[in-house]
Amino acid sequence: VSIYGLEVLERSECERLLETQRVGRVGLCGDEPAILPVVYAMHNGDVVFRTAPGAKLIAALLDQVVVFEVDDYDVERHAGWSVNVVGSATEIVHPAELAKADTLGLQPWAGSARDRFVRVVADRVSGRRIVQPA
Amino acid sequence: VSIYGLEVLERSECERLLETQRVGRVGLCGDEPAILPVVYAMHNGDVVFRTAPGAKLIAALLDQVVVFEVDDYDVERHAGWSVNVVGSATEIVHPAELAKADTLGLQPWAGSARDRFVRVVADRVSGRRIVQPA
Repeated sequence: VSIYGLEVLERSECERLLETQRVGRVGLCGDEPAILPVVYAMHNGDVVFRTAPGAKLIAALLDQVVVFEVDDYDVERHAGWSVNVVGSATEIVHPAELAKADTLGLQPWAGSARDRFVRVVADRVSGRRIVQPA
Repeated sequence: VSIYGLEVLERSECERLLETQRVGRVGLCGDEPAILPVVYAMHNGDVVFRTAPGAKLIAALLDQVVVFEVDDYDVERHAGWSVNVVGSATEIVHPAELAKADTLGLQPWAGSARDRFVRVVADRVSGRRIVQPA
């Protein structure tokens, strides 16, 4: 399926692409919309990232539905794809789950205070890729 | 000013960084939140991108407040920055403005049907950069 030159990706392909990146972006609605980059990993099909106390963590604590995005593109070739994951964000607080999250290689890039873990449940996964001219 | 290892950027630095990228992302709230990559250019301090009829254009037509994001990062060096622009999105319909928008180098990457132009007014601009260890 293709719409306006964009191929609609199967969920399995989206899941494969989600494993290829290290940095994604979390979108927050609310009074002031924001898109914030995060270092993430996939775990049991869901998105896990570290954060410091702040907007992202507040969203998680409130069980908000958030959108998480990854993409990759090539400016020269006009190639690229993007994947969106939409689901509720929750803080990981169970000790066994926290211990597991700590093994996902999510060392913080910016300071060591980023010690809370958030999971975005992959309720809805969608993706699109630019169709290259034949 | 730095918060949790992130330097809060001045508006002038955000505006400089906005000129350095070609691809950004538009965040849409509403029933189904989404983050969609777009090819963009800056014009008179605002964000301009092309789109096809769809969620992004609908948002524009409804004068919604949207968030536009650009970032750049280096996985090896753990370096990076991001900028958010928040403001109302409107379709560019005035002939003179359309003619100008057509000169911004926004050739579509995915098919030629992407022939509508949207402006996001840069009401609020914010940015952060990862502070590198000394």
